[in-house]
Amino acid sequence: MIVVMKPGATKEQIEHMIQRVEELGLKSHVIHGTERTVIAAIGDKRDEHRQSLESGPGVAEVVPILAPYKVASLEVKRERTVVRTGSLSVGNCHLGIIAGPCSVESEEQTLSTARAVKAAGATALRGGAFKPRTSPYSFQGLKEEGLKILAAARAETGLPIVTEVIGPADVPLVAKYADVLQIGARNMQNYPLLEAVGVVNKPVLLKRGASATLDELLLASEYILNAGNQNVMLCERGIRTFETHTRFTLPVASVPYLHERTHLPIIVDPSHGTGHSSLVPRTAAAAVAAGADGLILEVHPNPERALSDGFQSLTFEQFGEAMDLIRRVAEAVGKKIEPAPGSRCRVRIESAAAN
Amino acid sequence: MIVVMKPGATKEQIEHMIQRVEELGLKSHVIHGTERTVIAAIGDKRDEHRQSLESGPGVAEVVPILAPYKVASLEVKRERTVVRTGSLSVGNCHLGIIAGPCSVESEEQTLSTARAVKAAGATALRGGAFKPRTSPYSFQGLKEEGLKILAAARAETGLPIVTEVIGPADVPLVAKYADVLQIGARNMQNYPLLEAVGVVNKPVLLKRGASATLDELLLASEYILNAGNQNVMLCERGIRTFETHTRFTLPVASVPYLHERTHLPIIVDPSHGTGHSSLVPRTAAAAVAAGADGLILEVHPNPERALSDGFQSLTFEQFGEAMDLIRRVAEAVGKKIEPAPGSRCRVRIESAAAN
Amino acid sequence: MIVVMKPGATKEQIEHMIQRVEELGLKSHVIHGTERTVIAAIGDKRDEHRQSLESGPGVAEVVPILAPYKVASLEVKRERTVVRTGSLSVGNCHLGIIAGPCSVESEEQTLSTARAVKAAGATALRGGAFKPRTSPYSFQGLKEEGLKILAAARAETGLPIVTEVIGPADVPLVAKYADVLQIGARNMQNYPLLEAVGVVNKPVLLKRGASATLDELLLASEYILNAGNQNVMLCERGIRTFETHTRFTLPVASVPYLHERTHLPIIVDPSHGTGHSSLVPRTAAAAVAAGADGLILEVHPNPERALSDGFQSLTFEQFGEAMDLIRRVAEAVGKKIEPAPGSRCRVRIESAAAN
Amino acid sequence: MIVVMKPGATKEQIEHMIQRVEELGLKSHVIHGTERTVIAAIGDKRDEHRQSLESGPGVAEVVPILAPYKVASLEVKRERTVVRTGSLSVGNCHLGIIAGPCSVESEEQTLSTARAVKAAGATALRGGAFKPRTSPYSFQGLKEEGLKILAAARAETGLPIVTEVIGPADVPLVAKYADVLQIGARNMQNYPLLEAVGVVNKPVLLKRGASATLDELLLASEYILNAGNQNVMLCERGIRTFETHTRFTLPVASVPYLHERTHLPIIVDPSHGTGHSSLVPRTAAAAVAAGADGLILEVHPNPERALSDGFQSLTFEQFGEAMDLIRRVAEAVGKKIEPAPGSRCRVRIESAAAN
Repeated sequence: MIVVMKPGATKEQIEHMIQRVEELGLKSHVIHGTERTVIAAIGDKRDEHRQSLESGPGVAEVVPILAPYKVASLEVKRERTVVRTGSLSVGNCHLGIIAGPCSVESEEQTLSTARAVKAAGATALRGGAFKPRTSPYSFQGLKEEGLKILAAARAETGLPIVTEVIGPADVPLVAKYADVLQIGARNMQNYPLLEAVGVVNKPVLLKRGASATLDELLLASEYILNAGNQNVMLCERGIRTFETHTRFTLPVASVPYLHERTHLPIIVDPSHGTGHSSLVPRTAAAAVAAGADGLILEVHPNPERALSDGFQSLTFEQFGEAMDLIRRVAEAVGKKIEPAPGSRCRVRIESAAAN
Repeated sequence: MIVVMKPGATKEQIEHMIQRVEELGLKSHVIHGTERTVIAAIGDKRDEHRQSLESGPGVAEVVPILAPYKVASLEVKRERTVVRTGSLSVGNCHLGIIAGPCSVESEEQTLSTARAVKAAGATALRGGAFKPRTSPYSFQGLKEEGLKILAAARAETGLPIVTEVIGPADVPLVAKYADVLQIGARNMQNYPLLEAVGVVNKPVLLKRGASATLDELLLASEYILNAGNQNVMLCERGIRTFETHTRFTLPVASVPYLHERTHLPIIVDPSHGTGHSSLVPRTAAAAVAAGADGLILEVHPNPERALSDGFQSLTFEQFGEAMDLIRRVAEAVGKKIEPAPGSRCRVRIESAAAN
Repeated sequence: MIVVMKPGATKEQIEHMIQRVEELGLKSHVIHGTERTVIAAIGDKRDEHRQSLESGPGVAEVVPILAPYKVASLEVKRERTVVRTGSLSVGNCHLGIIAGPCSVESEEQTLSTARAVKAAGATALRGGAFKPRTSPYSFQGLKEEGLKILAAARAETGLPIVTEVIGPADVPLVAKYADVLQIGARNMQNYPLLEAVGVVNKPVLLKRGASATLDELLLASEYILNAGNQNVMLCERGIRTFETHTRFTLPVASVPYLHERTHLPIIVDPSHGTGHSSLVPRTAAAAVAAGADGLILEVHPNPERALSDGFQSLTFEQFGEAMDLIRRVAEAVGKKIEPAPGSRCRVRIESAAAN
Repeated sequence: MIVVMKPGATKEQIEHMIQRVEELGLKSHVIHGTERTVIAAIGDKRDEHRQSLESGPGVAEVVPILAPYKVASLEVKRERTVVRTGSLSVGNCHLGIIAGPCSVESEEQTLSTARAVKAAGATALRGGAFKPRTSPYSFQGLKEEGLKILAAARAETGLPIVTEVIGPADVPLVAKYADVLQIGARNMQNYPLLEAVGVVNKPVLLKRGASATLDELLLASEYILNAGNQNVMLCERGIRTFETHTRFTLPVASVPYLHERTHLPIIVDPSHGTGHSSLVPRTAAAAVAAGADGLILEVHPNPERALSDGFQSLTFEQFGEAMDLIRRVAEAVGKKIEPAPGSRCRVRIESAAAN
């Protein structure tokens, strides 16, 4: 850390801060500039000391030098993580395609969607049984009945199931049925929930909160990794900005940015990221070109009858067309959508130093 | 709702949408404009149908007419809610002052702060025993031991206790000690938690999420109100914007805006809203001038030794000076800080129609 | 427009607003809902009346139905505009590649870059002679000398020149040398400047302001189109959001969104959009996959010696690698980079109604 | 500046960067941390070198230590600037009240407003003769005729005139009539315009751009100060964020933040900052409590007939009520609204070091 003193900082204030730095177990190193003094604080401690030093007398700011996350960091593990479950492979050269309805509404709706997305090339089925809804008066999901319908769809199609869990108390139940536990954007910093999925032996898909920084996303993943579960996929699903023509703003540069910093695979959600089905295919293609390791897409047999998110759901036909575009772009950038598990690809690790 | 058709919408598409509106139990009313057709959908249903109609063929957008929240609305209850517990009165002409450390760190730290803030005029004590922290490697709070320290501080000073609860499983324990349950910004849309505090007989202080709209804040409060707990205080604590010179951006216009729409009292948090102790007193004064019903402020005996949020915590002396400024502005706008419970003031309800 | 009255609006207020609507030359149409009354205002007037009606007594809000822009609209011109000048073709199936240094610094730097980008496949040369700089103490450009250097680079390589103009007084001078006049993000709403380039017979590249909505971008283009210049290219270069890991946030969904609304071609600027050269190639590829009609990229012989924007400039080698990736993705989505002018492609106009 | 090397930076890369720092005329100072190496670059150069160093090999980031602005800085001039013209005094303990219509529409409208705002206590008259409008089809102002009307209003009431100038070519004309030249938010970074008003002998009111950082606002003011005009007032008028319930988001913490960094006086614009007349009085009061040195407020005899911004304009009666509230809060925080020029107040300069 670099402790930047204010221009008028007194000798006493500087001495005081040197002492503070050393009390924290860090080595201090003072540099007297032409207008300001800065104190370098050397050691392996991270974020926690920053706040403490920032409130010292005469301190203008404290500039962190080390990233606050550890286990998620490409500095710690140089090989890219590939998350696999059944036909779903996500990471490195594998492009996972997770598709299905926003909410599980009925067996008929879920099974017909599962068949359609499988036929078009999806490698996993998504569907919400527990729905976090902005309004208490909106449809909240079929809960366990929904999970059973998802399990039936898996039994028929072989697609692994990706479904959301919204509270720590529901984790055992959801984990009984699901192949991948999804943590929604609203819950990215729901720490008891992160800890609960961290002790489960199933992959986790962690969505970025609508106003979370990428550092905060990586730190949220550390809660899960730190609890013991190493199979974490990060999901960029759009951030909240002044733009209102799309539901959220989807920053595709997050994909190469995260790939420079973490070994965890990155999924993109163009359905929530744009909020309009007409924008989804092109945005999905863009995510793949940016290097995404997976896509999660909303598909519904009849979007205008959907109980949630109809405006951003693709019809079966639109999903098929989107998959054609996605497949062409995936091939152009060296990614494979692989329905068969176990296949391997050449490991390409870009060196962080080379970037 | 107003269903706006696209310019080239066909007669069949328009007919289809009229039928859809009527299937939803709404009355349709078609208006043929010079360039577009719009269909008014009349009835008392709210948000859930909007999404459904938006994905219809030829539909450009669906414009809601009614606010999506109900019980929180000033349209439903015209009398301003005053939340009272012990010496804390929040709402109408009562200005509550909730002050104390970010985290409970020790009995000594908490008791000395409680004494100091009481002496300077605070009407409640804040302090975190369960701390939601961005990093899993940061101090997570003293948990039940912290709650006991808070209870001890209340026993000595008489100040009611405001403290955060971060998971539904902890609600009974926290409610056993606390006078007010705080829901933090990260948990504004943690619905199992909102439902859990909705069945407790203690007031709730609900913080706005860093990227939540005010409609979403009001809808989150509806989860609590709808579960039966009517003693809800809303808290503006700043939103995340491109500004980085403050920790968050604190939009004081939220206060008059919310007062036009809801009967619930509005609290402002200038400590998190600015993130720098030097900006807190002036921003607190601004919040009071804007009409805030309460303030929540971080105070610490020695901010640079604080285990969390030291850079935004006031010293005892700074808190005393801030209180002088706050008191002068409160008087100028007709608000009273009242340590004695039970006192009344003239009920001023501005008519929403008059605004 | 739809005038939404407040819940408690009186009969007099409603009558008043009906009269106001009719005074504005619009036809009124009243709909009495279960809780609110709305008045549809029918006619072809656009934005100007909205503000006027919004301040009427008892009015909750006024909802516009028509887009505020006209000439730029796909409703007005259904054929996509292709902007051509020399080897640069932008629009429809043509992908223009505009590359070069941020600032013209010397003849050697500019000519070597022009040769290198041409060799790698660029179809136009960018370079700033008039530089709008945040600080008055930064390098402000070589001005006319820089324009002469650009002209020399064109003479040697045949690449048309894209360069920025920052004030109306400079338009004649810049137009004397440039093939395309660039309006920078800071000047998107500099109306005297927009009007000045609107009467020049050269194409204009109009960059989106860092906090401009897409409607505002389209309205800014209307100033140019309305003044008589129909050769306008819109450029998405990123918006300012809470994200700080990239210089701006680049929302690629802007490309399909704008393509649904306007016939003007859309260019993307991944250099400013990300601010880090290592993120540029992937983001450029994403923009092409999203359907962009052109890219504008910063390239410098020695980025760390650049007088501006070195951190986001590609070296010649990096540009060559980026072009390989861009070319593969362009082919996957049916776009051609054409050094030879005059070639044609099948006109694909997606119907807006079909979206 | 602090040059932070990447974790894997080689010895050669570090040597290279040390050499680069020294080539720039700065002194280098290397610190070897436990995981990274940082190089302190000591000297009085500012922003321009930062970008250059950022693109060096193995560099992770470059952290500036000095603020990029100079003349505007409180480090350079420790006495607060008070801007005075006629009855308007802005700065230190003087609170200026600038009120009037958004646009000058007619002599009757402008004169009646001037009389009304003067009667209620305003110390200057605002009114736009040159109007920058988002749409080319909106009312663009009366131009010189409008300036003459403003001059007539000054002749009658004695109020100095604050009016906007939108292009460098108009500066001499506007300066002939105006007492204060206003630079609008869209033009905050219109450098030819800033330079043009920098050589005029009239005070300038510089509005913050909707997505400008406060550093960028201070740097924009440097263009004016640097050109010779020292009478600059900065104006916070709201930023663009995800909030749509207000027109912009008005961060009142900007006031104490800027007061800690600059000697220039700070004005707040609650009319644009909120966009709704009902929110203006409370937000204006909040700005004063935050320490604002002036307010600029839109007032119109009949807002719903206004040709621009009617929805955010106060009626005469509302302005009178707002002034009552503003006056009470001003008194509470030690600010005076002084119609008589020349009066003095105790100079209170808070030490930046003390904050």
